[in-house]
Amino acid sequence: MEENDGNFCPIFPASESSVVELDHGSGGLLSRRLLAEWILPRLAGVGAQADHDARSFDLPHGRLALTTDGFVVSPRFFPGGDLGRLAVYGTANDLVMALARPRALSLALILEEGLPLEELGRVLDGVAAAAREVGVEVLTGDTKVVERGAGDGIYVTTAGVGERAPGSPPGPHRIRPGDAILLSGDVARHGLAVLTVREGLGFEGLPESDCAYLGPAVEALVEAGIEVHCLRDTTRGGLAAALHELATAAGLAFEIWQGAVAVHPAVAAACELLGLDPLHVACEGRFLAVVPAPQAERALGALRAVPVSSGAVQVGCVREGDGVTLVTASGGRRPLRPPTGRPLPRIC
Amino acid sequence: MEENDGNFCPIFPASESSVVELDHGSGGLLSRRLLAEWILPRLAGVGAQADHDARSFDLPHGRLALTTDGFVVSPRFFPGGDLGRLAVYGTANDLVMALARPRALSLALILEEGLPLEELGRVLDGVAAAAREVGVEVLTGDTKVVERGAGDGIYVTTAGVGERAPGSPPGPHRIRPGDAILLSGDVARHGLAVLTVREGLGFEGLPESDCAYLGPAVEALVEAGIEVHCLRDTTRGGLAAALHELATAAGLAFEIWQGAVAVHPAVAAACELLGLDPLHVACEGRFLAVVPAPQAERALGALRAVPVSSGAVQVGCVREGDGVTLVTASGGRRPLRPPTGRPLPRIC
Repeated sequence: MEENDGNFCPIFPASESSVVELDHGSGGLLSRRLLAEWILPRLAGVGAQADHDARSFDLPHGRLALTTDGFVVSPRFFPGGDLGRLAVYGTANDLVMALARPRALSLALILEEGLPLEELGRVLDGVAAAAREVGVEVLTGDTKVVERGAGDGIYVTTAGVGERAPGSPPGPHRIRPGDAILLSGDVARHGLAVLTVREGLGFEGLPESDCAYLGPAVEALVEAGIEVHCLRDTTRGGLAAALHELATAAGLAFEIWQGAVAVHPAVAAACELLGLDPLHVACEGRFLAVVPAPQAERALGALRAVPVSSGAVQVGCVREGDGVTLVTASGGRRPLRPPTGRPLPRIC
Repeated sequence: MEENDGNFCPIFPASESSVVELDHGSGGLLSRRLLAEWILPRLAGVGAQADHDARSFDLPHGRLALTTDGFVVSPRFFPGGDLGRLAVYGTANDLVMALARPRALSLALILEEGLPLEELGRVLDGVAAAAREVGVEVLTGDTKVVERGAGDGIYVTTAGVGERAPGSPPGPHRIRPGDAILLSGDVARHGLAVLTVREGLGFEGLPESDCAYLGPAVEALVEAGIEVHCLRDTTRGGLAAALHELATAAGLAFEIWQGAVAVHPAVAAACELLGLDPLHVACEGRFLAVVPAPQAERALGALRAVPVSSGAVQVGCVREGDGVTLVTASGGRRPLRPPTGRPLPRIC
């Protein structure tokens, strides 16, 4: 058994590296320095502590929701957001889509050897800023380091625990024929923002990513007393993926009014040049709400009063049957292509 | 806006690939096939469903614990375990170390393009087997795909929600001078098992990884009425890291009786050849329990009645002061070296 030669006293390694080293993942002193100097200070304002691995928290009751997402977006910084914000908003949004209030987040980092620590810091600043906005604590975390070439800088995986309102959570099983399908804003901003930075494309006038927390919009619906049948954020795979998944899960037909789905003109132009269908491009701050038709106008009023969903419109309705049908301005009907083919990798 | 040319009907891509493709991460049909054909069938027995992103669950009260860990172990399969088992046990163990019963797990996968699907399947089989053993549901998950060279096959991040027993959870703040320090078994098996496979070393008679669920051992302590002051699994950084962290957090001195810490002879011999100190090598199925000295014998009796902690012994005691001191058989005293220097990357 190798032993210490008397040279105890916890000497920190002399190297003052500005990049992640393999030893940052060893569980030893350098791991503790990474945590103490780079991670905890950035997250201290949102509840992070060096502590036991599991953190305790108390809620008034045990009606819970759990969600998780890995975030591998490339590049890590894009117009309107960054990997850290995306991770917190994304997980918080999944909870609010289940009418659950985000109460605790976990944050697991997989860092690649050689990552500039300053970039880690900026991503964590994004985590902290988003957590403050959402009002959620980053209760617990983990950091692993992989060797150069076995990762891509930083991968972030967040899990979120939310506290559900009483009653049955919304979901596709509650969608009924006749329901109104509302969409909270224009589509495809996030995917285009990430893609244009990654590919170095110079589109003019392109709006930023729509990356945002959807909690205020959902609270507005609840406060207006809307009987929310189903909520779904239109992330990976875009509006088309969300519509197809909901229609399939509900066992009903969705009729979507093509002219009602807003696309920013610069986004539409860029999509056309790239051969992308904006209905298939990811958003990170938009969602579908399926509500009883008689409540649609009131729901839209509530949504439009909140900045994040100020562009809310009804985009269609639910029928008996199956599939998702696009209805054109001229009254033409055609099936909405399900998301397939052309992948847009590393978009979230 | 690109549209479907009438050729609707959800045609699955013709390719019957046996490896992960980028399009498996697109959110489209191939993503759904990956989930439906490779992921959900393997996890169906432990609660996984294709569903909304956040899954609801109810607990009788709101006393909770949350933990997360990323798992990047290389290789993914090693004697005594695999990446999937390690992820479930590791997260469940963090919960039971907080006296919390594991109730819900999340599972986030980051897959590298080109990964054989069969390997993904075997890892998920490990997840399912471990979840069944622990008695926890894999409630929710996520799958991302990164391009070849931006990952290393599979990274798994689990988060766990546990239900705490009433009363203050154990922790370093509850450690008192005079307490007994118990260790549940011999050390360094896991690190050696992984290292020897990875480096292709041919040590004879090496035991398997100790990778295991610690719940039964902790339950035994609780059922015996032991007043558990602190629990800590001795994972990354090994026994030395756990002791140093606890002593520092408690603001007390730990005295460790070197002769009481068991090391399997083949592990000790391999460590000697590799220049490793077994006290610094990770376990994945061992833990420290700090208990009042008068209860130590009863606690050891309870632990030894359970297979996973049958080798439990008292390895030391808590004193006023600080630091971790090794006491040798001859009565010599020297500081236990804190974990620093030589990293053992990708061990968990």
